[in-house]
Amino acid sequence: MKAIMNEQRKKRLRNDALSCRIMDAEEAAKLICDGMVVGVSGFTPSGYPKAVPMAVAESAMKKKPEERPKLTLYTGASTGSELDGAWAKADIVKRRFPYQTNDALRERINRGEIAYADMHLSLFAQYVNFGYMPKIDVAIVEALAITEDGGIVPTSGLGNTPAFVRNADKVIVEINLLKPLSMEGMADIYAPTNPPSREPIPILRPNDRIGLPYIACGPEKIAAVVFTEMQDDSRLLSKPGEKELAISRHIIRFLEGEVEAKRMDRNLLPLQSGVGNVANAIFSGLADSDFDGLTCYTEVVQDSMLDLLRSGKVIMASTTAISPSPEMLPRFEAEMNFFRDKIILRPQEISNNPETARRLGVIAMNTAIEADIYGNVNSTHIMGSRIMNGIGGSGDFARNAALTIFCTLSTAKDGKISSIVPMVSHVDHTEHDVMVLVTEQGYADLRGLSPRERASCIIENCAHPAYREKLFDYFRRAAESTGGQTPHLLDEALSWHSRYMRTGSMLPA
Amino acid sequence: MKAIMNEQRKKRLRNDALSCRIMDAEEAAKLICDGMVVGVSGFTPSGYPKAVPMAVAESAMKKKPEERPKLTLYTGASTGSELDGAWAKADIVKRRFPYQTNDALRERINRGEIAYADMHLSLFAQYVNFGYMPKIDVAIVEALAITEDGGIVPTSGLGNTPAFVRNADKVIVEINLLKPLSMEGMADIYAPTNPPSREPIPILRPNDRIGLPYIACGPEKIAAVVFTEMQDDSRLLSKPGEKELAISRHIIRFLEGEVEAKRMDRNLLPLQSGVGNVANAIFSGLADSDFDGLTCYTEVVQDSMLDLLRSGKVIMASTTAISPSPEMLPRFEAEMNFFRDKIILRPQEISNNPETARRLGVIAMNTAIEADIYGNVNSTHIMGSRIMNGIGGSGDFARNAALTIFCTLSTAKDGKISSIVPMVSHVDHTEHDVMVLVTEQGYADLRGLSPRERASCIIENCAHPAYREKLFDYFRRAAESTGGQTPHLLDEALSWHSRYMRTGSMLPA
Repeated sequence: MKAIMNEQRKKRLRNDALSCRIMDAEEAAKLICDGMVVGVSGFTPSGYPKAVPMAVAESAMKKKPEERPKLTLYTGASTGSELDGAWAKADIVKRRFPYQTNDALRERINRGEIAYADMHLSLFAQYVNFGYMPKIDVAIVEALAITEDGGIVPTSGLGNTPAFVRNADKVIVEINLLKPLSMEGMADIYAPTNPPSREPIPILRPNDRIGLPYIACGPEKIAAVVFTEMQDDSRLLSKPGEKELAISRHIIRFLEGEVEAKRMDRNLLPLQSGVGNVANAIFSGLADSDFDGLTCYTEVVQDSMLDLLRSGKVIMASTTAISPSPEMLPRFEAEMNFFRDKIILRPQEISNNPETARRLGVIAMNTAIEADIYGNVNSTHIMGSRIMNGIGGSGDFARNAALTIFCTLSTAKDGKISSIVPMVSHVDHTEHDVMVLVTEQGYADLRGLSPRERASCIIENCAHPAYREKLFDYFRRAAESTGGQTPHLLDEALSWHSRYMRTGSMLPA
Repeated sequence: MKAIMNEQRKKRLRNDALSCRIMDAEEAAKLICDGMVVGVSGFTPSGYPKAVPMAVAESAMKKKPEERPKLTLYTGASTGSELDGAWAKADIVKRRFPYQTNDALRERINRGEIAYADMHLSLFAQYVNFGYMPKIDVAIVEALAITEDGGIVPTSGLGNTPAFVRNADKVIVEINLLKPLSMEGMADIYAPTNPPSREPIPILRPNDRIGLPYIACGPEKIAAVVFTEMQDDSRLLSKPGEKELAISRHIIRFLEGEVEAKRMDRNLLPLQSGVGNVANAIFSGLADSDFDGLTCYTEVVQDSMLDLLRSGKVIMASTTAISPSPEMLPRFEAEMNFFRDKIILRPQEISNNPETARRLGVIAMNTAIEADIYGNVNSTHIMGSRIMNGIGGSGDFARNAALTIFCTLSTAKDGKISSIVPMVSHVDHTEHDVMVLVTEQGYADLRGLSPRERASCIIENCAHPAYREKLFDYFRRAAESTGGQTPHLLDEALSWHSRYMRTGSMLPA
């Protein structure tokens, strides 16, 4: 057994000189000290380091709260409970960028204990490369393998790893033996230079490979190599409900209209979709559509996209992460030889880049928490103040896509919250960036409409019947008494949210 | 006199077959009929057609209101009183896109009589090319000349002219004999194809020329040629006041800090600035700075930029329009041989393109109407409902720039309005897109700050002293009672605006 392990480790650690840097997670964790800036691999609970972060948290928990290290954590997007969860609970995160989904972390962010800034995911690597953010001391990176030259072969979630490795003083590599080596070759690492010498990103089609299958690093920078065998903390996806499937049907109906109007072909344009159950449901609906030869230029590949690839409906997917559910994982890994040629893993500054999104003409489909009658979208905040997750890549794609679609269920909390409101309590996507709004009620095509026209269109097609007349009433009174391009009653604009906070329902008592 | 005219006309109309299409403006105006979609040349009162639009308005005014044509008008950005003003007053505009600044037009838009949609300027040509907007019946285009092949040589404001000419059924050309033929060669026309076959825009530096000096059209499409001699309805610029100069000094101080921190060189990165007095003041301050070898990648060149080019401080400017004030115009035209090599006029889908803005690493400096304590910016609406002008190109640049700066005076209406408010009444640029906020009070560098940190930074550095303590009071109470990532008191968030509307001042009585 030991001999096999050694053989396997040799295949993974191909630079002999680095064998002296092999250590256990506890030892490597000692490289992380108070005040440090730590950058990690991974994107959307996929491909993030686990063993070393857990050891950092465990070591901190042995100390009194005031003696624990205070760290700044840079990620690609969300990570799992072993990192975001454990570090938050150990109260060792002082600052955190640029996206998160963890409950324990969110709680502390909303209490103002952790300074969190929610940023466009394509921009964060640039912030680091430009020196806008404090410099990275240590990068912790999950890898399939380390090459002869000290190159890092990433696993399933690439995110900002190339930029973090480039900018870090030291790199800790977790070689995860549970991640199949057959995944090697999926990654395509291309690093844009900084202005004024930046060149065009040479991607003309979603399947263009433009870089290397590993992250150039060099053995000198690698301070520790830790072998691990841990699965990502991925989430179960719920089976799409009737309402989510209705949203998917409305989107397909809208896209069929685009094909009929000869604005695109039956193979559409490259698809992008956000993360989570609604996003997964949108893609699952495509399986039964008449579209085919589809491509994908997105930030995360979930179960339904893997199904679409397997069925041939989608011929290839460009992404920065693959995040299969625990149910899907064994099938995904068993069929790696099939998937390896169909998926390209890119750094998120490329997967989400405005340049490529605009050039390829992406169809961006993202979820909203709420939208207002004029088409402004809130993707991040509950009742204006409390953050949920973050804007993620939605802004990268929405602003630059050929078609920008936002989806939400028309109500939340058993109908006590209307997702269509007079004025959103926080704006992440402005009226200028929202072309189509979809709920289970229907879709509103807002292209070329004035704000007043948008209001009628959204209320009629997207609002839940229980709120429709109340929204029309607000709009009519605002148009009559205030008037203007975007009529509002400022004393009332946010009163639906206030009422909910006071009474637990947006509906009048 | 007649002979000279003919000689001059020959130099301008180089396709002999088109001489039969020469007509007066009244005759050409008859090509514009009820229900038509009209696309016009020009950008920021520069290079728009004048004689034919005036004839259209005059002919309409002779009819009863209910018998006048109802037209949809597409432009590059704002036009002058001969078009936007005259058409609005004649009540013949039914729909208007994507930007405007005219009083008569604005009044009708705010009354809901004209359907106006305010759009990112880089996107409108794409909306037309994709077939998202109703098809253009007639394009009316101001030109320096028509080439032998029926190519249109544009004047000083390019805007969306190439896309409108391409998509129109017929083209009316106004050859403006007052615009000097020595301007020929400034324009660089490059038209991106639609996805999925779109290629990288081959601009690597602001001074790269990538296209033709005229708009390909062909004589068949040209339905009328009208000779005119009319100046653009350009505005006088006020001499920068003390407060505007203070804003300029703060920006320069901030940029000097970037150079000291080695985040950029002394020749900075390509500069972009919006339209109007504050924008003009920002650039005028650069004349006395230590920066040199500057370049510009912007949407409009105003007086101060022409001065900077003349002095050699700025070595070249890429733009879609040149809009000299009436005072500057004679000098600009007299020195055309100097300026012709230093200025490139691009279609606005190129001058404002996210791809080039991100690649070149533009420094975007745009003006705000108001900003809130968390860094959200309102560029378009007065008290949430009434539109002022439009978002223009600010979103194109702000989202994609290497540095995004927004400026506003800290108060308006003699101090009765604070431009820093608890919550903006309309959002055009979200917290994610605003790096630096500047008022005459100082600048707030928001990069890498959480919303709560941003609030302190903005209130301290940017708010007017008369409002500073009131803003801190709001922020503290919101943080204590509501908490969250972005603490707000929803019942109070817009109360400053409500108070102003009720009492004429944001200050309590």
